[in-house]
Amino acid sequence: MDTALDLSNPEGALDLDNIRFQLIRLEDTITFHLIERVQFPLNAAIYDPDKLPIPSYNLALPPNLSLADYMLSETERLHSLVRRYDAPDEHPFFPQVLQRPIMQPIKYPTILHPNNVNVNSTIKDKYITEILPEACRDFGRTDRGETKENYGSAACCDIACLQALSRRIHFGKFVAESKFRKETERFVKLIKAVDRQGIDEAITNAAVEKKVLERLRLKAKTYGTDPSLSAAVNDRKEKINIEAVVKMYAQVVIPLTKVVEVEYLIQRLKGTEWE
Amino acid sequence: MDTALDLSNPEGALDLDNIRFQLIRLEDTITFHLIERVQFPLNAAIYDPDKLPIPSYNLALPPNLSLADYMLSETERLHSLVRRYDAPDEHPFFPQVLQRPIMQPIKYPTILHPNNVNVNSTIKDKYITEILPEACRDFGRTDRGETKENYGSAACCDIACLQALSRRIHFGKFVAESKFRKETERFVKLIKAVDRQGIDEAITNAAVEKKVLERLRLKAKTYGTDPSLSAAVNDRKEKINIEAVVKMYAQVVIPLTKVVEVEYLIQRLKGTEWE
Repeated sequence: MDTALDLSNPEGALDLDNIRFQLIRLEDTITFHLIERVQFPLNAAIYDPDKLPIPSYNLALPPNLSLADYMLSETERLHSLVRRYDAPDEHPFFPQVLQRPIMQPIKYPTILHPNNVNVNSTIKDKYITEILPEACRDFGRTDRGETKENYGSAACCDIACLQALSRRIHFGKFVAESKFRKETERFVKLIKAVDRQGIDEAITNAAVEKKVLERLRLKAKTYGTDPSLSAAVNDRKEKINIEAVVKMYAQVVIPLTKVVEVEYLIQRLKGTEWE
Repeated sequence: MDTALDLSNPEGALDLDNIRFQLIRLEDTITFHLIERVQFPLNAAIYDPDKLPIPSYNLALPPNLSLADYMLSETERLHSLVRRYDAPDEHPFFPQVLQRPIMQPIKYPTILHPNNVNVNSTIKDKYITEILPEACRDFGRTDRGETKENYGSAACCDIACLQALSRRIHFGKFVAESKFRKETERFVKLIKAVDRQGIDEAITNAAVEKKVLERLRLKAKTYGTDPSLSAAVNDRKEKINIEAVVKMYAQVVIPLTKVVEVEYLIQRLKGTEWE
């Protein structure tokens, strides 16, 4: 059951079968975490530093943060100490708060080309304005405010969701590198022409995308229902809005993964023989 | 889908149907988190401050901590700021590191009788020495050490598992309070006699326990397999050792929940008319 992708092995890490396995496995992680999150209502105030300002004592950050940003940045600060952001498949939302790890480094071989692609600010924005409102749509009551709602619990769940989404979407870099190595000539031409649309078309496989969405629907249904209850009870007791999970992939995860792939490839020739 | 138990409503919080719903829902949470954890091997070093000492700058803690304790205590410190440990269903593993919340308090009504029952040290011990070794049993390779293994990732998953287990097990207090209110006379007699065995017998329902274990097996199987794969593939690709999940409940969760119930009831008469 050694199912975490071994990034210390460059050939294994760029094998498309291994990448595919990891992407499919991350669907489970994302679905699990979103199911946990939607136990709580949207709680929009936790994303708004004007409604619920949390003073930040970190000079690298604005003086007032939203509760969600406060918790996410503090968690990233802590996780950086145990090397989270040394890993090539991890990208911080708050690079300015990272600290030097307190453990010996893992020596990752060079797998990806040097690049600065990080779409986390878009991921966070879409998570707050698109994914969550849809997933929490059926909640059926309004926010009762700071002294009544489990704002902290919701913010903790958000961290897990955002970290999993970020990992999934930035895995596009491994996909792109793998595709670049397979069809180098074709991509060099497109990259030299800065033909983003051409690259996007070259990396898109509509049939695979359709299959991903079908699988997501099945997973949201399966993981979102208690298997010990009858189907009739489960229809009333689904833990998550299944269409919201599918939409999350269709409108956020898949398109942003392609943005990551395209932007990674745009930087792929820098410092190489093809530049 | 407002599925988090509303602890601001004492009658709802002590309704056995509501408690039962919450306990069943927490089975999903625990199973989800353990499935995430077993992507990584046991990594025994992260529980051993002699093998991998992490210097603690918190004077309330020993000078060297295990990596798991370091991450758990730092996470609890952070979560205490957003009121986690104000909630009557949350119990810290490191009460000595908690800080004053940075948010307005939630005014919880008095639901439970004042008590100091906290079995977290036993939960952590059994998690490390019984649950994890069983769940990671099939991993099939040995620990490659600090510079190779994803120790930090495993420790982060441990936090989620331990927090969910602690919440589930300490929910026994609500179960016990509810039972005490239903059969006050019977329990007062047993408590006055400090008859722990008698209390244990009074709160035990072997038929319900058997049903819980059956449900856990079904959940571990359902959540631990990819529903888009065929049964034959899934038998080889189960994400988690199903029997380990069942054992976790049979040997740790159910017995410790009963310990919580019994010890809570032992303290239940203090300062009351029955003392």
